[in-house]
Amino acid sequence: MKVEPKTLPGFMELLPNDQIQFNSMMDKIRKSYERFGFLPLDTPVIEMADVLLAKAGGETEKQIYRFNKGENNLALRFDLTVPLAKYVCQYYNDLSFPFKRYQIGKVYRGERPQKGRYREFYQCDIDIIGDGELSLINDAEIPSVIYTTIKELGFDDFTIRINNRKILNGLFAELNLEKESVDIMRIIDKLEKIGKDNVVKCLEDLKIEKEKIDKIMEFLEIDGDTDSKLEKLSKLGFTNELFVQGLSELSEVVKNIRLFGVPEENFNVDLTIARGLDYYTGTVYETFLNNYRELGSICSGGRYDNLAEFYTDKKMPGVGVSIGLTRLYSKLKELDIIGNNQKSISKVLVISMLDNNDRALEVGAILRKNNINTDVYLENKKIKAKFKYANRLNVPYVAVIGEEEEKNGTVSLKNMETGDQKEVSIDELINIFKD
Amino acid sequence: MKVEPKTLPGFMELLPNDQIQFNSMMDKIRKSYERFGFLPLDTPVIEMADVLLAKAGGETEKQIYRFNKGENNLALRFDLTVPLAKYVCQYYNDLSFPFKRYQIGKVYRGERPQKGRYREFYQCDIDIIGDGELSLINDAEIPSVIYTTIKELGFDDFTIRINNRKILNGLFAELNLEKESVDIMRIIDKLEKIGKDNVVKCLEDLKIEKEKIDKIMEFLEIDGDTDSKLEKLSKLGFTNELFVQGLSELSEVVKNIRLFGVPEENFNVDLTIARGLDYYTGTVYETFLNNYRELGSICSGGRYDNLAEFYTDKKMPGVGVSIGLTRLYSKLKELDIIGNNQKSISKVLVISMLDNNDRALEVGAILRKNNINTDVYLENKKIKAKFKYANRLNVPYVAVIGEEEEKNGTVSLKNMETGDQKEVSIDELINIFKD
Repeated sequence: MKVEPKTLPGFMELLPNDQIQFNSMMDKIRKSYERFGFLPLDTPVIEMADVLLAKAGGETEKQIYRFNKGENNLALRFDLTVPLAKYVCQYYNDLSFPFKRYQIGKVYRGERPQKGRYREFYQCDIDIIGDGELSLINDAEIPSVIYTTIKELGFDDFTIRINNRKILNGLFAELNLEKESVDIMRIIDKLEKIGKDNVVKCLEDLKIEKEKIDKIMEFLEIDGDTDSKLEKLSKLGFTNELFVQGLSELSEVVKNIRLFGVPEENFNVDLTIARGLDYYTGTVYETFLNNYRELGSICSGGRYDNLAEFYTDKKMPGVGVSIGLTRLYSKLKELDIIGNNQKSISKVLVISMLDNNDRALEVGAILRKNNINTDVYLENKKIKAKFKYANRLNVPYVAVIGEEEEKNGTVSLKNMETGDQKEVSIDELINIFKD
Repeated sequence: MKVEPKTLPGFMELLPNDQIQFNSMMDKIRKSYERFGFLPLDTPVIEMADVLLAKAGGETEKQIYRFNKGENNLALRFDLTVPLAKYVCQYYNDLSFPFKRYQIGKVYRGERPQKGRYREFYQCDIDIIGDGELSLINDAEIPSVIYTTIKELGFDDFTIRINNRKILNGLFAELNLEKESVDIMRIIDKLEKIGKDNVVKCLEDLKIEKEKIDKIMEFLEIDGDTDSKLEKLSKLGFTNELFVQGLSELSEVVKNIRLFGVPEENFNVDLTIARGLDYYTGTVYETFLNNYRELGSICSGGRYDNLAEFYTDKKMPGVGVSIGLTRLYSKLKELDIIGNNQKSISKVLVISMLDNNDRALEVGAILRKNNINTDVYLENKKIKAKFKYANRLNVPYVAVIGEEEEKNGTVSLKNMETGDQKEVSIDELINIFKD
């Protein structure tokens, strides 16, 4: 009896050419994070359930993979933030603050599987954690990292949208609408979908006074470039302390984002962004590919006052963002945005036409010694099978060695895209791939 | 009530400087595997229990993390070979054979935790899988990859020991000792520890005839360099078919290892290597650092006839090896072999002595644009705190910007190792790190 080999639904498993493309994106993200000096971290996938769930609740808790092994109650991590909080408390004395770390790893959520939803998926997180305090200037470094990362991934037309939750919370406080704030936020979130008139109608349904609705709409209608938005905000004349502080923080963050070198066209202030989670307390970010708005935000995050309150009395403010790489990759493939133009691992495949592979092995060894990724076809098959292998490998060049080439100490190099073929010496061969 | 932040025993969690070192080793392994054209794979950590355990049994099964989620019986992978077998069957029609893949990932075994034993650990595997058949020449490519990888990891004095299980099995068949073979192998394995005389005593305890013990000892005493060992083997005069085939295969593999360019001093034939698992059917490998024999084999594997017999009737022979990176790293640290000479992520830390960070941000942006990993210290702290951060970061250079430097458009670059400091222009700064 054979067992049917299959993979669980909701678990991404890629064919090699797709995996190369996926890894290339992951490498670019890592490279960008390291460019800014973020330190790598790799925490366990399994943690003690009480440690991991110290903070969780509601929907999240239901999705968590939990199980027992011996006497231990265990759980699989469902994000990289809780493990970070644990780590920072545990190794507090060994870390230097601000602690800038990145972590790229798999997390687990037992959601009902559906298109674009995964139960195992990669998160690529950066966070900067302060010890007691953390300068606001860090809130400007984060968009600068996002900018570098999304550019590195090959996109130019994207916008990092920035807001400060204190502005929204201050608005509700100013209008004495704190109680209704969650409902109002839910309505505001739909603005783009349902339009202004319907937003007004929904707000009326909440029995909010007309005067206050006018104020909210005036706030929502603030438009223009970053600076005119900030100016219009200050001209609203709100005196609520939280609002004033939020506006001041946002202005300072915008000033510093410019100093960090993020071009004007790649960021703006978006007063409607709130980020659902209670978690965030100040600056918040979302990032959109302008030509593919249907992807939603591909990189989101914000500032939080207290990372690790469930583990320690120490106050640890932080700011960070996350890219959900598995979902992003699957969407980009689905919409055929990134195509199949990935590079192969090998730069060249060496094929012997002789009845042995001796010379092919020698040539392969020389290329590899010169740091050129090289595959040598070793099976005793017909030439057709060898080129079929080359085609499926998607390798750009094939170096063929026949009697003539063996005698001349050369190879016939075939460009697999153009079909061109020419005889080259080993030195020439090395030079072609060194470029 | 605060929850105590702690990590499960048997789960490695590193401080950032160690993590950098660990990742550097992992990168070198990956780079070496790709040098030979192995394709990347990334299978789920969680699989259906019946799929993952199709083959397992005995000790392994007891160690496996198993649990239910909804109606599914799930298990965490305990190696990367079973997922490979699953993958190759599942995507058979989409793959080209020989299928050369590497996978670097975490696997899980709920062993009793003890020094050097981990419950979550990285395996770094390469395998070459044939469709129906796989040329023996692949058995020589594997040592060539091991050689490149261990060199890349910074070791020179190591030996890849090679044997062929058919030789040992043929020996037992020749002597009509098949039934006792497992016991005999266990004794042979102790040769180095207990010495020849004690091996003879143990064999006598098994009631093996003196004549046969002499033959076994004659076999075990075969020494000299690779070629003289092979010659002495052939002079034993054994006619058992398995033995003859094993010797012929081993000779052929040795010939090709040389063509692959592996130096004579880094491999040899070791007739005592058997690799416990039933799994292997031909060539077997172990790799030892000659100055650190106590580490045991750091890279082992071999040839197997049939990868995926539990999933398919197709015959898929393969050959591969694995590096247990988590264990290797922890041993190397424990024995202080790799020390603390890891590089920092950032090449330079920019520190402002002014009352703002404006110029520091500009300089940081320029360096990053030139692909130089750069950290900018952003907190408003005393200079002492800033340099303390630099020291703990282990960063090789600090670029200080005071009034003078701001005016001159320069930085004062301090070499943190020598303490030397000099004023340099931004162009000079870039050139220093481009080298």
